Amino acid sequence: MEIYLDNSATTRCFKEVGELVYKIMCEDFGNPSSLHLKGVEAERYIREAKETLAKILKVQEKEILFTSGGTESDNLALIGCARANKRRGNHLITTAVEHAAVLNTMKYLEEEGFEVTYLPVDQTGRISLQDLKNALRPETILVSIMYVNNEIGAVQPVTEASKIVKEYNSSILLHVDAVQGFGKYHIYPKRQGIDLMSVSGHKLHGPKGTGFLYVNEKVKIKPIIFGGGQQRDLRSGTENVPGSAGLALAAKMTYQHLDEKIATMRELKAYFIEGLFKLDGVVIHGNTDESSAPHIISAGFLGVRSEVLLHTLEEKKIYVSAGSACSSNHPSVSGTLNEIGTAPEYLKSTVRFSMSEFTTKEEIDYTLETLYNCIPILRKFTRH
Amino acid sequence: MEIYLDNSATTRCFKEVGELVYKIMCEDFGNPSSLHLKGVEAERYIREAKETLAKILKVQEKEILFTSGGTESDNLALIGCARANKRRGNHLITTAVEHAAVLNTMKYLEEEGFEVTYLPVDQTGRISLQDLKNALRPETILVSIMYVNNEIGAVQPVTEASKIVKEYNSSILLHVDAVQGFGKYHIYPKRQGIDLMSVSGHKLHGPKGTGFLYVNEKVKIKPIIFGGGQQRDLRSGTENVPGSAGLALAAKMTYQHLDEKIATMRELKAYFIEGLFKLDGVVIHGNTDESSAPHIISAGFLGVRSEVLLHTLEEKKIYVSAGSACSSNHPSVSGTLNEIGTAPEYLKSTVRFSMSEFTTKEEIDYTLETLYNCIPILRKFTRH
Repeated sequence: MEIYLDNSATTRCFKEVGELVYKIMCEDFGNPSSLHLKGVEAERYIREAKETLAKILKVQEKEILFTSGGTESDNLALIGCARANKRRGNHLITTAVEHAAVLNTMKYLEEEGFEVTYLPVDQTGRISLQDLKNALRPETILVSIMYVNNEIGAVQPVTEASKIVKEYNSSILLHVDAVQGFGKYHIYPKRQGIDLMSVSGHKLHGPKGTGFLYVNEKVKIKPIIFGGGQQRDLRSGTENVPGSAGLALAAKMTYQHLDEKIATMRELKAYFIEGLFKLDGVVIHGNTDESSAPHIISAGFLGVRSEVLLHTLEEKKIYVSAGSACSSNHPSVSGTLNEIGTAPEYLKSTVRFSMSEFTTKEEIDYTLETLYNCIPILRKFTRH
Repeated sequence: MEIYLDNSATTRCFKEVGELVYKIMCEDFGNPSSLHLKGVEAERYIREAKETLAKILKVQEKEILFTSGGTESDNLALIGCARANKRRGNHLITTAVEHAAVLNTMKYLEEEGFEVTYLPVDQTGRISLQDLKNALRPETILVSIMYVNNEIGAVQPVTEASKIVKEYNSSILLHVDAVQGFGKYHIYPKRQGIDLMSVSGHKLHGPKGTGFLYVNEKVKIKPIIFGGGQQRDLRSGTENVPGSAGLALAAKMTYQHLDEKIATMRELKAYFIEGLFKLDGVVIHGNTDESSAPHIISAGFLGVRSEVLLHTLEEKKIYVSAGSACSSNHPSVSGTLNEIGTAPEYLKSTVRFSMSEFTTKEEIDYTLETLYNCIPILRKFTRH
C-alpha cells in the first residue's frame, strides 16, 4: 500500500485526464493557429476548455487565460497589472504568508520601483481586515491575497477583503492565488470581487505545466511573454492544447459532487487530528475546524525533526511533506510557520499531511498506526 | 488518407512519447521538490531528460533549462540576458526575419531602453556577415539569429556569425532560436559558438507546452518568472515532469538515424519541387538545394490566393499553412516573404509545405496530383 499524503505538493492525474492528453498529443495534435481542419479541431479543444472553466467560476470564456502553471499565473497577474497600472500608483499590498511565486515576484517588482506592504497574520495564519484597511493608500493599485495557505491550510477572508479594498477605491485590483483553494471551494470571482485568480492544474489531478489566470475583462494588464500574439496578445506561444484540455477535464471532474467529497475530507481530517492528539507533544498549526481548508493538516511533533519523520514514514510508503515542497533547492524553515509565531521547538518538527479525494479512512488509520509506533522511538533517539 | 504537411506549425507526438507522458502523469506523478520517494523519482526523470538533451548537444546537463516552449525560451534568453548584462551596454542585434517570439520580445526590450539593430536579409533569406560586422558596436551585448527560418526554411550562417561576433568582442552573447533547426541538424553549441539556444518540443513530435533553453554555464542571465527557485533559480514553478521527459524522448527518437531521415526528406523535397515546377507560374522562395532546410518548401502559385488554396487542399485532407501559423489572431502578410523582396503577385499566393520524418513519397504524389487538378481551376476562378 502506497499512501500519498502530499497532495498539496502535487497530485496523481485522473486516468481520464491522462487518456485525453494522450489522445490529443497523438491524434488531434493540430496547432490552434493553423487554418485547416487540424487547427480548427485544436482550437475547439481550447475553446471548450475555457468554456468548462468559465462555467465552474461563472465567468466569461474570454476571461480565462491559459498559462504554464500557478507560478506563471501569479507572475503574469502581478507584473502584468503593476506595469499596466503604474500611472495610477506604485503601491502593492500582499500578505507575509503568500507562496514564493507571489512573494518573490513582489520582491522583483520592488526592484522595478514598486512599494510593497506585506500584511502580517495572526496565529491562525489569517490577515486582519483592519490591517488591510490601514495599509490602503491613494497610490495602491493592487492587492494580492491567497485563498488557502499551502503550508497550514489557513483560509483568508478574501470576499471581505475585496469589500474593504473596493470601498476604499473601486479601481484597486484584487488578485487571488487560488492554487490551493480551487477544487476545494466554490469560488465565484464576480460575486466575491476577485479581479484576477491564479490556478494550477497539477494540484487537482490535472497535468503539470498547466494552469490558468482568470482576468476580469475590465482589468488592465500587460503580457510578460511576447511573441505570436496568442490568447488575445496576453500570452504568446502555441497553446498547450492537450494540457489545457486536461486541466479543464480535471477541474470538471473535481467539481463533480464536490460537496460530498469535501464533507468526506473534513470527516477524515477531524478523525486524523483526533488520532494525532492521542500522541502527546503534538500541535496542529492554524485552525482545525471548518474555517480551515479541508485537505491540509500541519502537525508539529515535539522532539522529532521533520526530515527524520518524513523519511521514517517514507519507509512505510507514506508520503508527506516537511515544508511546503516549493523547491528542494531552498530547504529553509517554513515562512508561514514563522509568521504565525510557532514555538521554536515545533518550527523544525512539523510535517504537512495533505489529502485528496482519493484519501481513505484505511490510509489514515495506517498512517496513525505508523505514527504511534515510530514517534516514541524517534523521540528516544533524539533525546539520548 | 490524411496528409499532414504542416509540420513546421506542429507535429504529431510519437506514440512512445504519448505513452511516457501518460505513465508519468498517472503513475510516477511526484513533485521533484518533494523529499520522499515520489519526489526523488520525479527528479530522476528531470535529470535524465537533461542528460539526454545534453548528450545530443554535447553540453552539460546543468546547461539545459526547461521552459514552457520555444516562445518562453526566446523571451528568457533575450530579456534575461539583456537585463543581466545591461551594465556592459544597451545594444542588441537580430535579423528582420526572426520569429515573432524574438521580434516582439525585441520590441518590448526597446521599451525597456535597449536599442535593437534588425539585420536585413537577401533574396534567399540569409543575413550578410558583412552587415553583422558593421552592426557590432562597443555597447553590443547580445546577438540573436535563428537557425532555420520558419517560413521559407532559410538557414542562417550561425557558426560564421559567431566567429565574427566573438572576434569583435568575446563577451557578446549569441542566442540562436533553433525551434525549426533542432531535430533537423546536428547542432553543437560549444563548437559553433552558441551561448544560448531555444528549442520547442512540439516541433519534433514532442508534447506541446514544453521546450528548453540551452544556457552556457558562463552566461549571465536573470530569470523572468519568479517563485520557488526551481532549476537553479532560473525558472521557478513545479517542473513539468511528464512534458520534459516526453520532450527528451522525442529528441532522442528524432536524432536516431537522423542522417538517413534527413537524406530521405531531402530527396522528397527535391522530388516535390520538381513536381511543382511542372505547373507554370510557380516560384519556390529561398534556396532549394542543401543550403536550405530539408523539411520546408515555400511555394508561390501565381493567381491563386493562399487561403483559397489552403482550403481547397484541406478538402482533400491535405494540410498546409498559408503563413507561418504563428497566430491566427494576426493574419498578416508573411514578414519573411516581404523581407526577401517577394514579387507582389506572390506575396498573398504562397503556401508552406512542411514535412516530417513520417512524410512519404505517396503523400507527395497525391499532393502533386491534387495541385495539378486544382491549380488550373482556381486560376480560372480568380481570373474571371
